[in-house]
Amino acid sequence: MPTPTSEPLTALELDRFVFHSWSAQGRLAPLTIAGGEGCEVWDDTGRRYLDFSSQLVNVNIGHQHPAVVAGIVEQAGTLTTIAPGHANLARGRAARAITSLAPDGMSQVFFTNGGADANENAMRLARLHTGRPKVISAYRSYHGNTGAAIAATGDWRRIPNEHATGHVHVFTPYLLRSDFWASTPEEECERALGHLARVIECEGPASIAAILLETVPGTAGVLIPPPGYLAGVRALADEHGILLILDEVMCGFGRTGRWFAFADHLEPGTRPDLITFAKGVNSGYVPAGGVIIGDDVAATFDERVFPGGLTYSGHPLAMAAIVATLEAMASDDVVGHARRIGDDVLGPGLRSLAARHPVVGEVRGVGVFWALELVAGRGDVAPLGPTDMAFVKAECLRRGLLPFVQDNRIHVVPPCVVTAAEVHCALSIYDDVLTALEENR
Amino acid sequence: MPTPTSEPLTALELDRFVFHSWSAQGRLAPLTIAGGEGCEVWDDTGRRYLDFSSQLVNVNIGHQHPAVVAGIVEQAGTLTTIAPGHANLARGRAARAITSLAPDGMSQVFFTNGGADANENAMRLARLHTGRPKVISAYRSYHGNTGAAIAATGDWRRIPNEHATGHVHVFTPYLLRSDFWASTPEEECERALGHLARVIECEGPASIAAILLETVPGTAGVLIPPPGYLAGVRALADEHGILLILDEVMCGFGRTGRWFAFADHLEPGTRPDLITFAKGVNSGYVPAGGVIIGDDVAATFDERVFPGGLTYSGHPLAMAAIVATLEAMASDDVVGHARRIGDDVLGPGLRSLAARHPVVGEVRGVGVFWALELVAGRGDVAPLGPTDMAFVKAECLRRGLLPFVQDNRIHVVPPCVVTAAEVHCALSIYDDVLTALEENR
Repeated sequence: MPTPTSEPLTALELDRFVFHSWSAQGRLAPLTIAGGEGCEVWDDTGRRYLDFSSQLVNVNIGHQHPAVVAGIVEQAGTLTTIAPGHANLARGRAARAITSLAPDGMSQVFFTNGGADANENAMRLARLHTGRPKVISAYRSYHGNTGAAIAATGDWRRIPNEHATGHVHVFTPYLLRSDFWASTPEEECERALGHLARVIECEGPASIAAILLETVPGTAGVLIPPPGYLAGVRALADEHGILLILDEVMCGFGRTGRWFAFADHLEPGTRPDLITFAKGVNSGYVPAGGVIIGDDVAATFDERVFPGGLTYSGHPLAMAAIVATLEAMASDDVVGHARRIGDDVLGPGLRSLAARHPVVGEVRGVGVFWALELVAGRGDVAPLGPTDMAFVKAECLRRGLLPFVQDNRIHVVPPCVVTAAEVHCALSIYDDVLTALEENR
Repeated sequence: MPTPTSEPLTALELDRFVFHSWSAQGRLAPLTIAGGEGCEVWDDTGRRYLDFSSQLVNVNIGHQHPAVVAGIVEQAGTLTTIAPGHANLARGRAARAITSLAPDGMSQVFFTNGGADANENAMRLARLHTGRPKVISAYRSYHGNTGAAIAATGDWRRIPNEHATGHVHVFTPYLLRSDFWASTPEEECERALGHLARVIECEGPASIAAILLETVPGTAGVLIPPPGYLAGVRALADEHGILLILDEVMCGFGRTGRWFAFADHLEPGTRPDLITFAKGVNSGYVPAGGVIIGDDVAATFDERVFPGGLTYSGHPLAMAAIVATLEAMASDDVVGHARRIGDDVLGPGLRSLAARHPVVGEVRGVGVFWALELVAGRGDVAPLGPTDMAFVKAECLRRGLLPFVQDNRIHVVPPCVVTAAEVHCALSIYDDVLTALEENR
């Protein structure tokens, strides 16, 4: 039997053993990342990049925050892993820290490994709590890549999960490319709510367990909902006894300059029934995610077995990273900083770029969660294609900025701790790249 | 907005904020685990327990192995997290270490957060490679708890995954409770293969992408396949162009005293098409799992985008734990030790218990992967019920042993590094508990 060897090879040479996510494997030209600090990463030659991707929009606290690293190191020396059935101090502390940030009436957390299984378990909770099979979600959404393991499972745990049968997708607000022939935010909001109401009516309200929405759809384009939309969804859900699951995997824990993005969108005194999270909760330093559960939903499982679980639920090392992250974010006011930098520097700077570059069709965002939508030109919102976007990505990298490029958009998503100087540096790079793009087309 | 607080509370007090896996939340009486070392864990009063559960059968290398902790600490100081698209040294090294243990012709690894998403992506690979929708798996199986996130997702990534429609379950060998009216292992094997062949025929071979089996079904009862069964499945799969996915999440990386459990079951020169793993690969010190991919399957995605992925795929901290774990396991011959301790001490000891206790209906296992099946008595294999099994669990804990109790069975699953002295201590506790059980009934 061969054993692991250790000849010196570079990260890029070793990458041939790695099968990558969402990619054609023969077309990869990955950047090597060897280290990072704050808003910077560097490759194995020491070349530095300003990280305006936060990787996959997860490193909210910045790279290698010393307090979070220290929290991981300390827990690693004590106890890395424990089965989910046991009580453990790091696990309890993480759950308390998270619930202390959540609205009243949400006092328990189910931990998972990431965002996909957070949404899995939120849907499971909603379906079993309501006894209804269907979930409504948005076409413009991403909620994770899982979909078959429990169906392949043979034992009893499959059976209570087999009622998870219906998924219905709706259109949601996106005024620039309105699916409702709307011309104002108010009209977009009103028509999107009307459309949702019609789908609920046509699917049968009594069949719908939950409406699952990203509070701010992220990968779909940082689509900030128009004022009143989510409050209207909450009211529709209440009217029909449907649970509202808000997916805060990307937008939560500081990204919008709030602990939870829905703080800007729901009426005071109202809340989602379930909140899913991952990424920012510990900046992904150790894989973790979870569901914050409304007390009424949790009570359903006081005497009834919850048919969901996983080996690394409430993993102590991940929990220690959560506790250290949330404490550091609170003591350094990282969330307030993200809001202010968005309001005062990043937002105005991006709007100024848009004013100067006809290729920027729209700027949207809040906090450190922005998108530049690149289009054919003034008055023509046809999205730029893959060749132009590959050019944008390459030119950003060449100038020392690691961008987040998605479809025809640049998502401007630095860590929440980004400084004004770093924002100015990035704005200048984007400016040069957009100029080069306009000259190149 | 409230911020995380830090009043001193015990782990048990804080546990009220935690929603637990696979449980009725009102009936929990969790054991607090504060630390561990090797085959022992201790609670917050310092009371020690011999860990014959390996938590959820994952801590193969034992608790807090210094080389693995050091590997985590070192990587934590360098770079904890990076997006899956980049190249990274820890990631490449982990992939190489794993593929170096795999059969020839399997030279890439897709990394996930755990076993469920490993199986998810193995099924995805198989379905897209074959262009066929169905997966056959066993009733006596567990492959993870996920099943809906990609269906709830709205964007394009949902669409190539919507062909994942069919799951068919078959009966598999389990002579003690034969589903085939068999009376010998040979008969059980032959009939189980005949049953599988009939299901393939009736479902239509051209509709079946994969047969997904735990090499040794674990949670279902440590059901070692009879000689020839898996080789027969491999031959049937080949006959019909069906891929064979072996789930080695629980049984892999040393549990059976082999790097992969299938080494005892497949013909030389044959291999699975896809191998899924998690748990033992890094003993769960940092959440990780993955799929080892046959080169012919991987080649399908050279020019075609693989429509699966996740934020923490190839997470550097998890990868560093894999590299350190596999190097320590190789240099300490942990896998060979697990085999020998099973052959020489644990197996004989458990068989001796069975000879003395009529309540033990069967002993099965290999390496450090065993089950004692508790039944009504000699000649009556009716399983013991929940009250008796709760008694067993409580009596083990009272005597300082953390057991793994599942249905009517004690799974005897210590870390691979368990010593002969620890095995003797555990055998003595099981002996006393079985005596108490027989007196109590």
